[in-house]
Amino acid sequence: MAGTAREDYERWLGRGLALDLTRGKPCPEQLDLSSGLLALAQDGSFARSDGDIRNYGGSAAGLLELREIFAPLLQVPVDQLCAADNSSLALMYQAVITSFVDSPAADAPAWRNTEPPVFLCPVPGYDRHFGVCADLGVTMKPVPTNADGPDMDVLESLVAGDPNVKGMWLVPKYTNPAGWTVSPEVVRRLATMPVAAPDFRIYWDNAYAVHDLTDTPDQLDDLLAACAAAGNPDRAFVFGSTSKITFAGGGVSFFGSSPANVAWWLKHAAKRTIGPDKINQAQHAEFFGSPDGVLAHMQKHRAILEPKFAAVQDSLGKRLQGLDGVSWTNPNGGYFVSLEVQPGTASRVVELAGAAGVKLTPAGAPFPYGSDPADTNIRLAPSFPGAAELEQALDVLADCIVLASDEASAG
Amino acid sequence: MAGTAREDYERWLGRGLALDLTRGKPCPEQLDLSSGLLALAQDGSFARSDGDIRNYGGSAAGLLELREIFAPLLQVPVDQLCAADNSSLALMYQAVITSFVDSPAADAPAWRNTEPPVFLCPVPGYDRHFGVCADLGVTMKPVPTNADGPDMDVLESLVAGDPNVKGMWLVPKYTNPAGWTVSPEVVRRLATMPVAAPDFRIYWDNAYAVHDLTDTPDQLDDLLAACAAAGNPDRAFVFGSTSKITFAGGGVSFFGSSPANVAWWLKHAAKRTIGPDKINQAQHAEFFGSPDGVLAHMQKHRAILEPKFAAVQDSLGKRLQGLDGVSWTNPNGGYFVSLEVQPGTASRVVELAGAAGVKLTPAGAPFPYGSDPADTNIRLAPSFPGAAELEQALDVLADCIVLASDEASAG
Repeated sequence: MAGTAREDYERWLGRGLALDLTRGKPCPEQLDLSSGLLALAQDGSFARSDGDIRNYGGSAAGLLELREIFAPLLQVPVDQLCAADNSSLALMYQAVITSFVDSPAADAPAWRNTEPPVFLCPVPGYDRHFGVCADLGVTMKPVPTNADGPDMDVLESLVAGDPNVKGMWLVPKYTNPAGWTVSPEVVRRLATMPVAAPDFRIYWDNAYAVHDLTDTPDQLDDLLAACAAAGNPDRAFVFGSTSKITFAGGGVSFFGSSPANVAWWLKHAAKRTIGPDKINQAQHAEFFGSPDGVLAHMQKHRAILEPKFAAVQDSLGKRLQGLDGVSWTNPNGGYFVSLEVQPGTASRVVELAGAAGVKLTPAGAPFPYGSDPADTNIRLAPSFPGAAELEQALDVLADCIVLASDEASAG
Repeated sequence: MAGTAREDYERWLGRGLALDLTRGKPCPEQLDLSSGLLALAQDGSFARSDGDIRNYGGSAAGLLELREIFAPLLQVPVDQLCAADNSSLALMYQAVITSFVDSPAADAPAWRNTEPPVFLCPVPGYDRHFGVCADLGVTMKPVPTNADGPDMDVLESLVAGDPNVKGMWLVPKYTNPAGWTVSPEVVRRLATMPVAAPDFRIYWDNAYAVHDLTDTPDQLDDLLAACAAAGNPDRAFVFGSTSKITFAGGGVSFFGSSPANVAWWLKHAAKRTIGPDKINQAQHAEFFGSPDGVLAHMQKHRAILEPKFAAVQDSLGKRLQGLDGVSWTNPNGGYFVSLEVQPGTASRVVELAGAAGVKLTPAGAPFPYGSDPADTNIRLAPSFPGAAELEQALDVLADCIVLASDEASAG
């Protein structure tokens, strides 16, 4: 058997493959869906609710027409939603770094005057969230997750017991990478749990709010409303973007929260810049026209993505079903399949695949400090490759997993 | 005389004027010059040096094609120039706030671990620079200016004597609001002066690098090269944007510095965002094509702006020439005319003008903490109003100045 697995693997070597399953990048066909967007706002009528979209001026909160479209989709009242530039990650980074000079809670000291802040990180999670913490000197503590979100017993104990815990990351719907959606019960507990720090904030990165891949999409409860109802109105920072709706590099992003948090946000945003790029915001508003326009557009993405996610299930099922210690998710939406391989072999699988020309996200990336204690998780991103490339990459991957398992058994 | 001045002024009241000389906003005709930009990058060929401009990926430094065009105009080597999104002010803000968590000098502590940093502010200066300091808790110290830049004797003494002086603001060409350009001798002294803080940086906001209004434009020496030649390569942060070249709200911005500073900048930028909006960057690169393309474009701006600046000179000259204590600049470029009125009357002039329907920048705005100790400076921005509106606004302004002088003499 070991001989066969090695032979299966070795037939890929020297083939000069260059396949990539690393990042959740839209494929060119997905980007083409939004080409019409660039043709808008060119007829010489640049006047919008906020004045001439080409010029300075208007609200620091961004173009109202755009905020009206995305407010219901992101579950944020329109007057509590700000529209910004192409990167929601930049908004999260800005929220963290701004807290070092001015805490979002009026009665809490700026973090430059406190012990180093701690953020809780449900794992596996989004590596770029952890990169923000690492860059800004925020200590990360992993929190285990279940099929409906973070393990709330662990989480509640940490936020209640440590006033240095100032925040937590969460991709609440079709989470990156594990694909689950936070349950109503978890939303309820997040909104109501006692916290030690008055400026504790949930960084609710709703990146895949409308990124359904089935006819029975996951439903996400409204955290902002739940927090307000629980008497903790300032607990949630909601983020979103069109990076995986229009253009990954040239979309628009959103920040929503309570009136007090939005006032804090805009106070600093208005000193940082004279305003966001309203031309791009107007193009997005006119391209979609309404929330339903966004949902209709997402069905076109689904038509491209659904076969790719099905190919992952088919391919892994055929090759790996029943293999000891190997399992994978089958999400209802989002951009990732999360693969568990035999503990202790994830790094070896990534190494073997790389040598055969298939680039995988580094093992450990979805964990704080890049370290997966069990060395078992691999994140697969099937959106970018074409059908043939994807199939070939999955074939290689399966051979690598089998070989790494064999090697581990052989000790 | 006082009766006449009051009568002259009072004829404006109740006329319902709504004129605005407050901000350096391009007028609609200037914005129209760049309409063609929005038609670019739509032919389905989105591949550039960096890959598909619509997608994630590519250099955090921004699109090479764009950086090549602006590198010579901003006097920065292309591999030391980063292209970013629509706001250079946001880049300056980011440089300051990032220094609180990581000093740009490897051997200096982050500012959150030091005494509150101090920035030197040549006055009169740009109010939004001072707004960044106020927002981030940076102490401001004014420095007087001459016709060729800051008073270097004062400046040299302050930077050499205080290790808390971590930065200074400077709009080096057609400065906001006074219109002067820094002389070669001042550039030389800035580059060579001893400084107490290893992470002292000159925030060289070259906002009007190509914004000439005459056939004999001011010439600006290359600060970055002068610093490198003087053995102080890391002293200068160079900023620029197309806010007053293409679209004030939807242009592109630039950060340039030494290789070490650029590495510091990109290390953090790459954690903050996956990349800038390369669609907009590609549109800008193709619209201009070359540095000469930018310069040719600026001649079209000049054709619109030069008559407006001439109108200011004509109108003020006719009405105020020889009036005691009143003078104004006649810059070779940029966006402003800086007006000195009789000491103690600037606030009153702004108040009178406002009551008559002419909005002026608040007196004191070009000074740290909004306070002009002599209450004498008023910034005029003639770019936005149409010719008739501008002429009328200047008529009102002249009447306000004469009346305020009369009141002061009578006082």
